[in-house]
Amino acid sequence: MSNNCGSQITSLGIVGFGAFGQLAALHLGQHFEISAYDPSPGLATVAKQLGVRLTSVHAVSQADVILIAAPMSSFEQVVSEIAVACKPGALIVDVGSVKVVPAEIMRRLLPNHVDIVATHPLFGPQSAGTGIEGLKIAVCPIQGTRHARLAAFLHKALGLNVIMTTPEYHDQELAVIQGLTHLIAKVLLRMGPLPTRMTTKSFDLLSDAISMVQHDAPEVFEAIETANPYAETVRRQFFDLAASLSVELENSIKDTAVQ
Amino acid sequence: MSNNCGSQITSLGIVGFGAFGQLAALHLGQHFEISAYDPSPGLATVAKQLGVRLTSVHAVSQADVILIAAPMSSFEQVVSEIAVACKPGALIVDVGSVKVVPAEIMRRLLPNHVDIVATHPLFGPQSAGTGIEGLKIAVCPIQGTRHARLAAFLHKALGLNVIMTTPEYHDQELAVIQGLTHLIAKVLLRMGPLPTRMTTKSFDLLSDAISMVQHDAPEVFEAIETANPYAETVRRQFFDLAASLSVELENSIKDTAVQ
Repeated sequence: MSNNCGSQITSLGIVGFGAFGQLAALHLGQHFEISAYDPSPGLATVAKQLGVRLTSVHAVSQADVILIAAPMSSFEQVVSEIAVACKPGALIVDVGSVKVVPAEIMRRLLPNHVDIVATHPLFGPQSAGTGIEGLKIAVCPIQGTRHARLAAFLHKALGLNVIMTTPEYHDQELAVIQGLTHLIAKVLLRMGPLPTRMTTKSFDLLSDAISMVQHDAPEVFEAIETANPYAETVRRQFFDLAASLSVELENSIKDTAVQ
Repeated sequence: MSNNCGSQITSLGIVGFGAFGQLAALHLGQHFEISAYDPSPGLATVAKQLGVRLTSVHAVSQADVILIAAPMSSFEQVVSEIAVACKPGALIVDVGSVKVVPAEIMRRLLPNHVDIVATHPLFGPQSAGTGIEGLKIAVCPIQGTRHARLAAFLHKALGLNVIMTTPEYHDQELAVIQGLTHLIAKVLLRMGPLPTRMTTKSFDLLSDAISMVQHDAPEVFEAIETANPYAETVRRQFFDLAASLSVELENSIKDTAVQ
């Protein structure tokens, strides 16, 4: 993606400079000149460390490539602000955990003269601790043709494992993958501190899985469980199967007691 | 444990020659002369490979050390058969996933002239695939004083990480550790084949945890969930927390829809 206009460095505007926006800046700094917008205070130091210029949403929206890393709750508002400021030919990319709803919003609000690609990096600051090479990213073409070039950049320049898909197929798979992981993690965390002494290997793996998602922002859980149109069905299936297993086990205990 | 009678090899009798009895024979073959009893047919080949003599429960019960690796459903019957045949001074050890009920049965049925130690190796054929060094075993002294010598053997000769505990404390911790792992695995397996493409690191860990326990014998699940006196409480807590989280999420979706 860099130097795609002769010798001129491509500009990247990040809207939403939270944990993921910062991770993106860390890995994209050598390829782009980065500006970022975030309404939260106290981001000056980290922005400086990452060589990122903090500015207005309007200024950020004039970059060649715009990365939307804002929470679902403000997503529609953010896209409508970008829509009035973005340049013809801009490439607009989002990075949220769900894809159907954001893709619909971007397609509806953004002008026809921009390219739109919906993505979901299947990792976060926690799992990218030792680098991002080999990690997975789902890429959904929404508008325009530059998704192929973006995919090549993600694969060649960042070493990511690119999975081309559609918002619908993505949300169906992720309703199980993220929906269940976060649901189970949430329930186990509410059970209080888990034992650490007489643990089995499988329980250790389960604990590791939980600790990877327990520090995710509450908005991530909210988005995964409520903004994915398939999450409710998967959740209901999990709860129903759990309930019927519970009944089976209570009956089996009664049978044993009667014998 | 070996050569504890001068130059004579200590005899070990395994009652129950299933997956765990065979794993025990594999790791204890160089320390003991092993015989085994199992009512199931078709074990001659594996017994021969492991250098184990298959014989009657009465003959096996006359060994210096008796290892009970029988399922919970036949545990009381097995112990009563050992009780009438075992030699004074024998060391009797069980290896099941629960400890309160088996310890009570062994204490009640076995004669006063034997030593009894209840153990739970926190691993199985699946997790011991690359050897058992460093793996955990819970050890509960029940009768006599030879638990200390057994613990030293398990640590020094087999390289196991020995955790001394009581049946009650063991079952409390394991109600969470194994109870929850197996419960979650069972529910997820009933959901059908899990997605493997757009997986996150935390979901991969969860899948690994499940695949470690999914091939366990049905008796293991049964024992963990119904023969552990604390399992029902833990299970109920998990199901209740899951149900209240489910309600919270449905309400949160309704709130979003209303806004």
